[in-house]
Amino acid sequence: MLALGEMFDINGRDAVTAYVAGYEAATKVARAVNFVHYEKGWHPTATLGIFGTTAVAARLMGLNPEQTARALAISVSLASGVKANFGTMTKPLHVGQSTRNGLFAAFLAKDDFTANPEAFEHKQGFFEVFNGAGHYDAAKIFDTWANPLDVIDPGLGIKQFPCCGSTHMAITMMLNLREKHGLTPEQVRHIEIYTHPQRLPHTDRPTVSSALEAKFSVQYCVARALMHGKVLLDHFEGDAWANPQAQALLKVMRTEPHPTMTDKPWCAEVIVDTQDGQRLSEKTEYLMGRGRQNPMSEAEMWIKFEDCVSRVLPADQITRLFDELSRFETLTRIRDLTALCEPQGLPANQAAD
Amino acid sequence: MLALGEMFDINGRDAVTAYVAGYEAATKVARAVNFVHYEKGWHPTATLGIFGTTAVAARLMGLNPEQTARALAISVSLASGVKANFGTMTKPLHVGQSTRNGLFAAFLAKDDFTANPEAFEHKQGFFEVFNGAGHYDAAKIFDTWANPLDVIDPGLGIKQFPCCGSTHMAITMMLNLREKHGLTPEQVRHIEIYTHPQRLPHTDRPTVSSALEAKFSVQYCVARALMHGKVLLDHFEGDAWANPQAQALLKVMRTEPHPTMTDKPWCAEVIVDTQDGQRLSEKTEYLMGRGRQNPMSEAEMWIKFEDCVSRVLPADQITRLFDELSRFETLTRIRDLTALCEPQGLPANQAAD
Repeated sequence: MLALGEMFDINGRDAVTAYVAGYEAATKVARAVNFVHYEKGWHPTATLGIFGTTAVAARLMGLNPEQTARALAISVSLASGVKANFGTMTKPLHVGQSTRNGLFAAFLAKDDFTANPEAFEHKQGFFEVFNGAGHYDAAKIFDTWANPLDVIDPGLGIKQFPCCGSTHMAITMMLNLREKHGLTPEQVRHIEIYTHPQRLPHTDRPTVSSALEAKFSVQYCVARALMHGKVLLDHFEGDAWANPQAQALLKVMRTEPHPTMTDKPWCAEVIVDTQDGQRLSEKTEYLMGRGRQNPMSEAEMWIKFEDCVSRVLPADQITRLFDELSRFETLTRIRDLTALCEPQGLPANQAAD
Repeated sequence: MLALGEMFDINGRDAVTAYVAGYEAATKVARAVNFVHYEKGWHPTATLGIFGTTAVAARLMGLNPEQTARALAISVSLASGVKANFGTMTKPLHVGQSTRNGLFAAFLAKDDFTANPEAFEHKQGFFEVFNGAGHYDAAKIFDTWANPLDVIDPGLGIKQFPCCGSTHMAITMMLNLREKHGLTPEQVRHIEIYTHPQRLPHTDRPTVSSALEAKFSVQYCVARALMHGKVLLDHFEGDAWANPQAQALLKVMRTEPHPTMTDKPWCAEVIVDTQDGQRLSEKTEYLMGRGRQNPMSEAEMWIKFEDCVSRVLPADQITRLFDELSRFETLTRIRDLTALCEPQGLPANQAAD
């Protein structure tokens, strides 16, 4: 969207409209193939995301309905990505490749490239070939088309912390405890973490000896939340997992399935016994900072944004970019925004590296 | 292979070796998923061909076994192409996209990009996700690996004429009749065409009113063979299908399943009654000009080559290119060959168009 917005000099409002169209296209096709598509082993961010990219591009390029249908039909033949490659660099490649292919399909359709407009519902088309007979229901695409728009309800969930989603509720409970009670690692004697039983098999990791294990250790993530008041990319890179204070905190933690909130799949409770004999606790029934009901606050968004962007942009530019993004729909030119994504004050060849 | 041969200054012998490796990789993986893969709706030239491209590239780039395995694992996540788009421009796009992706995977693997080395056999990998449980047999890949090499036996089938393969036997019989008896369209009173019953449903087309129909009309193809002594691209383009002599010949033809060669799926018999009362016939039990048992002669190869290449190269360059290709394995530099593929004597910018 940003690339095409720059190429065709689109304004913020039109870019938002295209984004909404793409979001709706991808999520509604998803309803037709859910949940078999994912369980079977496709990586839906790529294999369904491509239809979103194609729809965004079709809208920004002003394709007519017939061209848009052809663009989507072309993209059926470019969709790929299997979960066997999860845990490797090929996983994020799926998403980049899917975006490239979605744009490619839209450009081809604009240039009168042909495809079968029935490429989804054909007996050897997307539904049958990717999902298989009996494992999809195409009617679900249009049953609730734009009613409501999926981007409104259920809305978009942004991942707040750079680690396994199943650790996020406990992280937030520890952040709350730290903020309410001014808690420091030195004051803590013992920590109990309770999450839903289905969160524990992949996150109950009392010892951590690699960056990847750190991302999937609820204990480690809670330790970092206590230590810093935030959980950042740095905490999961290189040998950050070996940090002595974090490793020491792992030793005072106990993890259990939550005894009562068994019907709340995103529940968590964290209880801290302090050195001076207090017993502090926080609990939640919901995944915090995620989705329409529990969106991230602007302050939480800023923490994540700065953490990511500071790796490529100087400090003053991060603030300006955040401000521009906050008023995205009023932008006169997407180009002004993308210009801010490039480190300024560097020679052009260095900026491009 | 030619692109990498040019980029890395490979000689002909090494290019042939890489080709053989790629051929073997693609065809042996095919044995594991045959025939469900095709019947289900994948386009194997793309979805299996990608492994051939990746293996060729891995060999030419000198990847070690571990890198080669990773390259193939990456390409699992880039394989796509559904048969719903057959009959449109997206069908050949599958093949170009697959080649691009195969090269891309090899370059990524060389640069230490990671993928799951078990991406084929993983429970959410190529076999399970593309074919489905119970619809593949991975052991078949190595049962006969390079023993013999598939490129030797069964060998490569080059498509001799630019029309449906099911018309090729009858075309060849008419070419034989024409050559043996000096037959001309004017001498013909009536033509009977017999092919195997499974060839007829898609090629028994006594009237032809489009270029696409012409390709799938055994009558039209046989008419062209009689008229020209060859069947060329021109005969299936624009309004060539409307040629009055070809249309007139359609009216004197009769098509039937062959009455006796019912166990020969590639059989054909063509019988011509001439104006002067002769009854001439030719028959075959095999697909001619195809594969190891019935390869095209060098003369037949030349007819096809000249027909294709004359669209982009001047006459003298076609001969030189054909000669170079005929001694491919002795080439010192693939670059000398690819240089000949570019029209010479034109300004560079025009040649690139």
